[in-house]
Amino acid sequence: MKDIKPNETKVIVLGGLGEVGKNMYCITHKDDIIIIDAGISFPESDLPGVDYVLPDFTFLKENQDKIRALFITHGHEDHIGAIPFLLNQIQIPVIYAPNQAKELISVKLEDRNIRYDNLVVYTEKDKIKFGEMEVEFFRTTHSIPDSHGISIKTPNGRIITTGDFKLDLTPIGPMANLYKMACLGHDGVDLLISDSTNALNEGFSTSESKVDNALNDMFDRCRANRIIIATFASNIYRLKHIFETCYKHNRKICIFGRSMENNINISINGGYINHKELLISADEANHLKPNEVAILCTGSQGEPLAALSRISNGTHRQIKLRPDDIVIFSSSAIPGNALSISKTINKLCLKGVKVYTTAALADLHTSGHANEDELKLMIRLLQPKYLMPFHGDYRMLKRHANIGVDCGIPKENTFVLKNGDSLSLLNHTIKKAESMPGEDIYVDGNRIGEIGGAVLKDRKMMARDGILVVIINVDMKHHELLIKPNITTRGFILINENEQLIRKIEEKSESILKRELSNNKSTFATIKSNLTTELYSYINEITGRKPIILPIIIDIKKEVKTEV
Amino acid sequence: MKDIKPNETKVIVLGGLGEVGKNMYCITHKDDIIIIDAGISFPESDLPGVDYVLPDFTFLKENQDKIRALFITHGHEDHIGAIPFLLNQIQIPVIYAPNQAKELISVKLEDRNIRYDNLVVYTEKDKIKFGEMEVEFFRTTHSIPDSHGISIKTPNGRIITTGDFKLDLTPIGPMANLYKMACLGHDGVDLLISDSTNALNEGFSTSESKVDNALNDMFDRCRANRIIIATFASNIYRLKHIFETCYKHNRKICIFGRSMENNINISINGGYINHKELLISADEANHLKPNEVAILCTGSQGEPLAALSRISNGTHRQIKLRPDDIVIFSSSAIPGNALSISKTINKLCLKGVKVYTTAALADLHTSGHANEDELKLMIRLLQPKYLMPFHGDYRMLKRHANIGVDCGIPKENTFVLKNGDSLSLLNHTIKKAESMPGEDIYVDGNRIGEIGGAVLKDRKMMARDGILVVIINVDMKHHELLIKPNITTRGFILINENEQLIRKIEEKSESILKRELSNNKSTFATIKSNLTTELYSYINEITGRKPIILPIIIDIKKEVKTEV
Repeated sequence: MKDIKPNETKVIVLGGLGEVGKNMYCITHKDDIIIIDAGISFPESDLPGVDYVLPDFTFLKENQDKIRALFITHGHEDHIGAIPFLLNQIQIPVIYAPNQAKELISVKLEDRNIRYDNLVVYTEKDKIKFGEMEVEFFRTTHSIPDSHGISIKTPNGRIITTGDFKLDLTPIGPMANLYKMACLGHDGVDLLISDSTNALNEGFSTSESKVDNALNDMFDRCRANRIIIATFASNIYRLKHIFETCYKHNRKICIFGRSMENNINISINGGYINHKELLISADEANHLKPNEVAILCTGSQGEPLAALSRISNGTHRQIKLRPDDIVIFSSSAIPGNALSISKTINKLCLKGVKVYTTAALADLHTSGHANEDELKLMIRLLQPKYLMPFHGDYRMLKRHANIGVDCGIPKENTFVLKNGDSLSLLNHTIKKAESMPGEDIYVDGNRIGEIGGAVLKDRKMMARDGILVVIINVDMKHHELLIKPNITTRGFILINENEQLIRKIEEKSESILKRELSNNKSTFATIKSNLTTELYSYINEITGRKPIILPIIIDIKKEVKTEV
Repeated sequence: MKDIKPNETKVIVLGGLGEVGKNMYCITHKDDIIIIDAGISFPESDLPGVDYVLPDFTFLKENQDKIRALFITHGHEDHIGAIPFLLNQIQIPVIYAPNQAKELISVKLEDRNIRYDNLVVYTEKDKIKFGEMEVEFFRTTHSIPDSHGISIKTPNGRIITTGDFKLDLTPIGPMANLYKMACLGHDGVDLLISDSTNALNEGFSTSESKVDNALNDMFDRCRANRIIIATFASNIYRLKHIFETCYKHNRKICIFGRSMENNINISINGGYINHKELLISADEANHLKPNEVAILCTGSQGEPLAALSRISNGTHRQIKLRPDDIVIFSSSAIPGNALSISKTINKLCLKGVKVYTTAALADLHTSGHANEDELKLMIRLLQPKYLMPFHGDYRMLKRHANIGVDCGIPKENTFVLKNGDSLSLLNHTIKKAESMPGEDIYVDGNRIGEIGGAVLKDRKMMARDGILVVIINVDMKHHELLIKPNITTRGFILINENEQLIRKIEEKSESILKRELSNNKSTFATIKSNLTTELYSYINEITGRKPIILPIIIDIKKEVKTEV
């Protein structure tokens, strides 16, 4: 992958395919690399203890000297979340972002004490050149302001990436620039990289204006009640119109949930949300009449620690539910969260509260992503020769490719790829090129890449059958066991109730160790390995469980060594 | 209306508002008038004996010398049907039409023996100038090929009329030219005159490609059966893909219904429909196996004389239903026709035939007109300052105006007008201007305007209670009744079964006449008038009916006079 043919343009996908998250890809031409987006994804429940998942930066590390710029399409975490990690490892000469994304990135970098002086705001009027590549932008509509598509013109042809978009014909903010899209299409687009999130949904997506009306109606209907609204903290336009609805209905707003607070503060400072004066503290909210307050909170996905979950549990320190409260979920269920959402709703209902979700009133939420017909419209405006569906699971990408075929793109001109794949663009002809591993990089806390597959396997094993620690004191020099092995466990069995079993395991350990130590060829490593293997079999045989066996062998005459 | 201010541009609507039909409007600037479309509408059932309804040509007659051209948006009857009547009364220097419309107009003129040499085909590439007005075109999608929107640039601003359109993203024919629309919008559009037919329908309309798939599935499913398809003769794309479906499924096609035959012939000659070789006669069809034939016929609206109605009645001379026939209605019910369609379906079902309509399978038909979101997309592409909804009932126009407001057009910049109204455009500002009567002109046979309101009132009275004719022989000179009055009726009562009643009416007539004749001041007119009035009351009193009374008074000594 280090060798890029002299006149070839390449698209190298580092993340965002076969998943919704950690979007990142590079366009390379000659000695210039530009990067589009740098997102994280959030781990699924099969990744215990992982905070974020990052794209694999290996290609960028190996080609650091060629990187010219990072372009950001919009300010959502799956497009900007990896920036701090990227900047800690790789030098990025300049980051171009639209205004709202720039605000969010700045706060993110400040939070992590990263100083970066080359964060530049772009607008639709800009044209930016790197070598033979020319980059320009067109405004789209999405759930966050200032979302843009990006056009990269190269000597081999034009590449356009939509970023995340819908084509909302009555958006809350400015309209998408259909004219510019049509002009780019008329000038000629070779490759379109387009958002596949909702490719499986027919027709057009509901306009954000309809949600606006539905929320307004809800406020009209629930004039006397306290209203609690849970929504996505990342949906800035939704937050914006909740503020405006509260303003119209003379309600103060009290916010719970850190991500919600952050996004609202940034959006108020950036001028995206008005009526800052409506914000009140929990204490003030508790002293107002129900119909004078709206509570805006996180937890629309039933996340156990989010504000709404704690409110529904009765464990929130500042807000107690009242039986005539109204709870509105202005959100949809992200796949996998249906159960936890349902639990939260049940708890709320048990407290006598009325709950409204999109199941009862569809227009309480709409996605920020294009449905089938919006994808078609994008294709019809841009008229690309080739299509690479992006931002979605395999079946979404596949469906999106078929949508392209419906719109007249030859089947062989659609590319359903996976992370690590690349495309080669030469004189307006595109072929699939070589692949490199497009690994997921796990982040626990702030450290990148320290969690490998083995760590996760352990976490999963422990989650299932616990751990058994064998503490062994030996004098390796004299091959002598100094005291009897001592066993302790977590998550395996309760020691107090299983003294006999523990005794048996200790005895088994002792006999293995004595045998091992009597062998002069034994090393620290072989003792540990054999003990682990044999104990594992023994325990599995008598208990049917498979705990992790962790021998801690302490060589009294040397230093203390601890190994798995 | 004859006086047009020197620098003003005007839009004068002759037909097409408050109705779906007889579209026609004029754009005037200084000494130049251009006409857009010249359609007829078909009379509703409250206009007995009327064949067509035309727009009022008075304005055009009065300004004949200023007319420069007629532009046609597409070839449907409600846009071209009035051309023969117009050409018979008014000299039109040139008619510009897109290709398919030109074919249809030519046949129409030939049929009526009208020779016209200035019928010119336009394409998207043309720009045509008349004085200070410049006309150009953009391709749209509709149920007939070569439908276009028209842009008229004047010194006071640009006027765009969409013609009939939908924005089908996967059309059967070519795509709408979104790029040209976006460019016109970017250059600046002052007034948009846009199709309101389906403004009450939410979202996007179903793509014609989906109908294509649904029909295909139907042919797959009904492999063994004879298939009879009823659809609109005007939906050329539907006819086109029925031909293609038959070709794929190895079925010959037999056509019934004159309008269907005409449109198919014209479309085959123009290259719009392929596979001419599939056409067979009824005789041939009756000698093939059921699965080798498809019958394509008129009557999707349950019209009593149409092919499908006669087939369902068992009165069709050439086609008899078989119990395993399949009848597909690839059509929707035009408002008012539900009952007659339902009757036809019942008759078909009684014959054991399986009937499929959009009620069972929605995708068997789609409209050629834009739904709400397509209207929004058109507005977003063209970005007009003012909107005049066109082509629809009042509530459709009104809804379309609100759709414009949703898309950011100020409410006061939307014009919901009626036939005869006009708009004045001066330096990019539009105001409602004076109105003239925008009358419906009725055509019975080929004669225009000979049917007034009185004639229609009579037809309606006769339709309800019939007519009673009193034949009277008098000698007016001597004021003498020569023989007893003789009564005959049609649609009032059966004479044979009501001899006594007839006798009484004759006697009553006689007594009235004798009294009248004995008065020396009586005239022909007074006798007729009094006889009519008194007989009318008398008959109404004894029968409860209100037939038309038609006295035919024959003055034996003079000529024969007949008056109502």
